[in-house]
Amino acid sequence: MSVFDQFSFPPVSSCLDPDIQQKIDTKTKPPGSLGVLENIASQLSRIQRTVTPSVSNSQMIVFAADHGVVDQGISAFPQEVTPQMVANFLAGGAAVSVFCEQHGVPLKVVDVGVKADIPPHPLLINAKVAYGSEDFMLRAAMTNQQLEQAMEVGIDQANVAVDSGVELLMFGEMGIGNTCVASCMISALTGMSGAETAGPGTGLNADGISHKANVIQSSLKRAESTLGRSLKDWSIQDVGEQCGGFEIIAMAGAMLQSAKRGVAFVVDGFICTAAYAYAWKVQSNISEYAIFAHQSNETAHQTVLTYLNARPVLSLDLRLGEGSGAILAYPIIKSATVFIARMASFADAGVSDGQ
Amino acid sequence: MSVFDQFSFPPVSSCLDPDIQQKIDTKTKPPGSLGVLENIASQLSRIQRTVTPSVSNSQMIVFAADHGVVDQGISAFPQEVTPQMVANFLAGGAAVSVFCEQHGVPLKVVDVGVKADIPPHPLLINAKVAYGSEDFMLRAAMTNQQLEQAMEVGIDQANVAVDSGVELLMFGEMGIGNTCVASCMISALTGMSGAETAGPGTGLNADGISHKANVIQSSLKRAESTLGRSLKDWSIQDVGEQCGGFEIIAMAGAMLQSAKRGVAFVVDGFICTAAYAYAWKVQSNISEYAIFAHQSNETAHQTVLTYLNARPVLSLDLRLGEGSGAILAYPIIKSATVFIARMASFADAGVSDGQ
Repeated sequence: MSVFDQFSFPPVSSCLDPDIQQKIDTKTKPPGSLGVLENIASQLSRIQRTVTPSVSNSQMIVFAADHGVVDQGISAFPQEVTPQMVANFLAGGAAVSVFCEQHGVPLKVVDVGVKADIPPHPLLINAKVAYGSEDFMLRAAMTNQQLEQAMEVGIDQANVAVDSGVELLMFGEMGIGNTCVASCMISALTGMSGAETAGPGTGLNADGISHKANVIQSSLKRAESTLGRSLKDWSIQDVGEQCGGFEIIAMAGAMLQSAKRGVAFVVDGFICTAAYAYAWKVQSNISEYAIFAHQSNETAHQTVLTYLNARPVLSLDLRLGEGSGAILAYPIIKSATVFIARMASFADAGVSDGQ
Repeated sequence: MSVFDQFSFPPVSSCLDPDIQQKIDTKTKPPGSLGVLENIASQLSRIQRTVTPSVSNSQMIVFAADHGVVDQGISAFPQEVTPQMVANFLAGGAAVSVFCEQHGVPLKVVDVGVKADIPPHPLLINAKVAYGSEDFMLRAAMTNQQLEQAMEVGIDQANVAVDSGVELLMFGEMGIGNTCVASCMISALTGMSGAETAGPGTGLNADGISHKANVIQSSLKRAESTLGRSLKDWSIQDVGEQCGGFEIIAMAGAMLQSAKRGVAFVVDGFICTAAYAYAWKVQSNISEYAIFAHQSNETAHQTVLTYLNARPVLSLDLRLGEGSGAILAYPIIKSATVFIARMASFADAGVSDGQ
């Protein structure tokens, strides 16, 4: 049996919806005046089946891996930066590290396929599937067995978190070249061209972006030839094997399992959106569990968000990844739980409700 | 001497700019990749003349007052809600109260002109100038003496905060009818018509908005007749006296004094932007001290923000006021100080910088 066959789960129950809406509407504020926070409060209440949802117990999981396609010169940074940045996350010096510390959110890093051995560390999970994926311009990125294994890594991490009582999962990623991988996966999933899905990543210029778009188009053509079928006939396994990345697949598995276990999760920026799009193609009911954190500047991000009918909480011109947008959105997501739990009602406070 | 004459202060020094930019650019991230956070870190560093700025010691001050123009039926809520909501702030039940508690930011409420006596409370400052302003559709909203007195209230509060070591001031407001007052002040300051500056406030329908626009136009015409000069020839005192609100004028004074004392402040939504616009007309150097928190849905807000060349941190469809947008933006402003203070540099972390 494939890991892909275990994600049949129902939509979130709507049975508490009237209670939730009534609780929100009797708070001392004009109806709807907390905007996006009211949507998040409502979503978390439905997911957690309570009118006092909580995200106090949250966790950040950063999935890291390398990508053979960097051999095609599609990144502004060299591949050795992946393990260097993993070490930086573990030492507490990266952006996501200092923001997690600011908000008291524990961080762990999962090595799903970094092309280097990383010394053991209390915050590091060694779940390496391979020393990086293959160069998908030349051949499939991974085998079917590796694809399933990467999904299992994410599933396991979601299970560990949910078993420990985590109420909100945040995901980040590290992997030099993974904006190219994300773009290629989104092209494969949506039919958008490489020119539509390729962007500057962490720092490419116009020539670099054009080259990246060509690499994506050539890789998809190579894969169609390898598989003997055109893009529109690919299975979800085909997409993962031909142009996936280990950290993106693992994150998709973690998102699916988080939703299956009834726990909300935060989708960071462009690369996490690719993982989400992959997971959503497996089981579209995950949409009710997802909170989108940040609208990045990456070219294709707005297009994909529209395709997914998603509206992120923040738009801060971030283009860093790591889960940095997710952890920056966290205090606002928490504020949604704070207002529904702690604000006085019109009756409690003796305030006229204007009706 | 008028209180308006004491706000000549110089622009922020740029002497540390190279050090600040170097510190930001050597952090373990692609240059510019923290977007808006880099701008805020840079701004706070310049203001505080250090490459390790801090906003840990912050304060929320909510200014409250009533407005005679509510007699014209321009608000969805009755006037008794102003003192009721002040009591709710003091009891900790309002949105701004629970968000301040979430972030450990002390809140105080300043009664500048509520049309009711409010019982003493440790978090309440009684600085009442009058029991509400006059109905500016019929006559001047306040006397010159009241205008100066309201400004002094704000100046005093900024001084108390700065003297106690506050590093970032956040301002909120409460006053039934004050979106109409804010719209009228913005019309008077910018020449925009009432139709351009009137919006739904906390809950008017299309007829209500149209009525509000007419009230603003009629009031400005009345004031031109009272003063015997047309809008373009009004002094800043004319604007305040003819169509000001006590809480808005006090907030403008607090913003000016905060800047004069070298302390950054946060501008919440539409009404706070009116206070800022008033203060900015007094002394445009305050722009370097202002961080705009939230792009509200109020019709004229985007237009005024463009006029002021301001870009808010958040856009969450809030339309509540109280300083709710400011306190929701606070953790992100704090993250700007956290990254510049605590993130590792490329050299510290042994990460290749891709150059």
